[in-house]
Amino acid sequence: MSFKVNQEIAVCGGKVLKLSHFSQIIGASMDVNVYLPKQYYSKTVRKLIPVIYYLSGLTCSPQNASEKAFWQIQSDNYGFAMVFPDTSPRGDDVPDDPEKAWDFGIGAGFYLNATQEPYKKHYQMYDYIHKELPTSLDEYFGKDSNLDFLDNVGITGHSMGGYGSLTGFLKNYDANRYKSCSAFAPIVNPSKVPWGQKAFSGYLGSENAELWSQYDPSELVKKVINKGNDKILIHQGTKDPFLQTNLRPELLLEATKGTSWEGKIEVKMVDGFDHSYYFISTFVPEHATFHAKNLGLI
Amino acid sequence: MSFKVNQEIAVCGGKVLKLSHFSQIIGASMDVNVYLPKQYYSKTVRKLIPVIYYLSGLTCSPQNASEKAFWQIQSDNYGFAMVFPDTSPRGDDVPDDPEKAWDFGIGAGFYLNATQEPYKKHYQMYDYIHKELPTSLDEYFGKDSNLDFLDNVGITGHSMGGYGSLTGFLKNYDANRYKSCSAFAPIVNPSKVPWGQKAFSGYLGSENAELWSQYDPSELVKKVINKGNDKILIHQGTKDPFLQTNLRPELLLEATKGTSWEGKIEVKMVDGFDHSYYFISTFVPEHATFHAKNLGLI
Repeated sequence: MSFKVNQEIAVCGGKVLKLSHFSQIIGASMDVNVYLPKQYYSKTVRKLIPVIYYLSGLTCSPQNASEKAFWQIQSDNYGFAMVFPDTSPRGDDVPDDPEKAWDFGIGAGFYLNATQEPYKKHYQMYDYIHKELPTSLDEYFGKDSNLDFLDNVGITGHSMGGYGSLTGFLKNYDANRYKSCSAFAPIVNPSKVPWGQKAFSGYLGSENAELWSQYDPSELVKKVINKGNDKILIHQGTKDPFLQTNLRPELLLEATKGTSWEGKIEVKMVDGFDHSYYFISTFVPEHATFHAKNLGLI
Repeated sequence: MSFKVNQEIAVCGGKVLKLSHFSQIIGASMDVNVYLPKQYYSKTVRKLIPVIYYLSGLTCSPQNASEKAFWQIQSDNYGFAMVFPDTSPRGDDVPDDPEKAWDFGIGAGFYLNATQEPYKKHYQMYDYIHKELPTSLDEYFGKDSNLDFLDNVGITGHSMGGYGSLTGFLKNYDANRYKSCSAFAPIVNPSKVPWGQKAFSGYLGSENAELWSQYDPSELVKKVINKGNDKILIHQGTKDPFLQTNLRPELLLEATKGTSWEGKIEVKMVDGFDHSYYFISTFVPEHATFHAKNLGLI
């Protein structure tokens, strides 16, 4: 599980590493950015450094959030590393949306394992994000690196990536895979909104309600039992152009009613904010504090 | 002097305004972004809000620094507004580099008044940045706005924009136009480096040494007398790929020897940093503090 270091860039007190590696599960080369905070480079601080996985939204590569979300200052502040994976497989032999739309295919992998042709060969993003990538990073950096890619980790993301964060957290909740989960303007009920319906039809098949429900946060909250007092933090801008069509956070809150998640998912509606990195970067500090608490850093 | 508000985007505690206006001096429509900090929107705080002009580098539009330099959190922190102008005129009738290179013509106006054909009609960036734009913004926002675009203002910038900052500050020093000046990886001696020689030849003519010297910071420090104890702050990354060819900060320091600026220009060489917004965003907090002190905010 070897990575190629394409670039190593100083930022804040640490470094952004632009990596690529061949994913066995995806069957293609994948890009991923990692931010190692100043604590990683400290010769005196040898505490284990938790990792937060940040899943980006439609069309993004690992670069967008690395450059615009400004997690780095928070990573240095609290002492966690960041991993910014890609949003889909890429490459000449990776099938794209037939009409090259931006909401399906390349740049829009929806963090699930496709079961339909021609996507199922490469679009195995769920297994890649939640299994192969963390294991590969752990092997690559080595057990002596004081980076904890596998155990004390959190997950977050934006839009399609917020959906990926919620889904990954809930589907792996019983295994205690992620200690912390948050999301920025997530798709919360993909089975009921256009982006999700298009993606699920294409990747999972249009007549497969049971499989759809396994990837739908608003269905998962009904099945997964919140055993402790685990909370999820969500921010949503009121001027987000996708709020009424594709995001609809009220559907998730309604779904939790009468379940173990009722009152455990906080959706903060923030006045005047849109769907851009201006919105994300504004609330990254609050999410960083939320994760830092859950990861035992404060 | 009217502006069109193309977008108004919430970020941090304030808003980024994406504006455009017709510049009489340039003879074309110009884009400019303005960040108004939370203090502007406060109904109780009515102190005059100073403005910092940020001049971007080669190829940039007003968007790059607005999205990636992360000045906003500092603006809110200290209570100054930001102005992000464009780097050149744009439009179908604006002449570009004959070979469409990225270091001359559109996206590369060098913040000077061109005297040569075909550039002199539109490339009047010096008068635009230091005269028309601030006056127009002052008129547009009005005297009751508590924004100070004209008097208690600072200037900074990156690369070509760092050059623009140094040049604008020094050429207007006797008029006390800017109260504060800094630069990120600036071109300090354009007459002696490839980027500068190409730009000066094209915009000012290749046989015009006297005019070149009027736009060269390393010449201006010999003529302009530092009357007080004014200081300039510069950061420069050691892994900047343009350090040895086009930036060469040592030339500015050599030029100040025996002048009133000797010891007043601090060039901080920062280990491992490159020429990107990762570098800029890392040192924006230090520049913000520097300007906030000079503008009387702390």
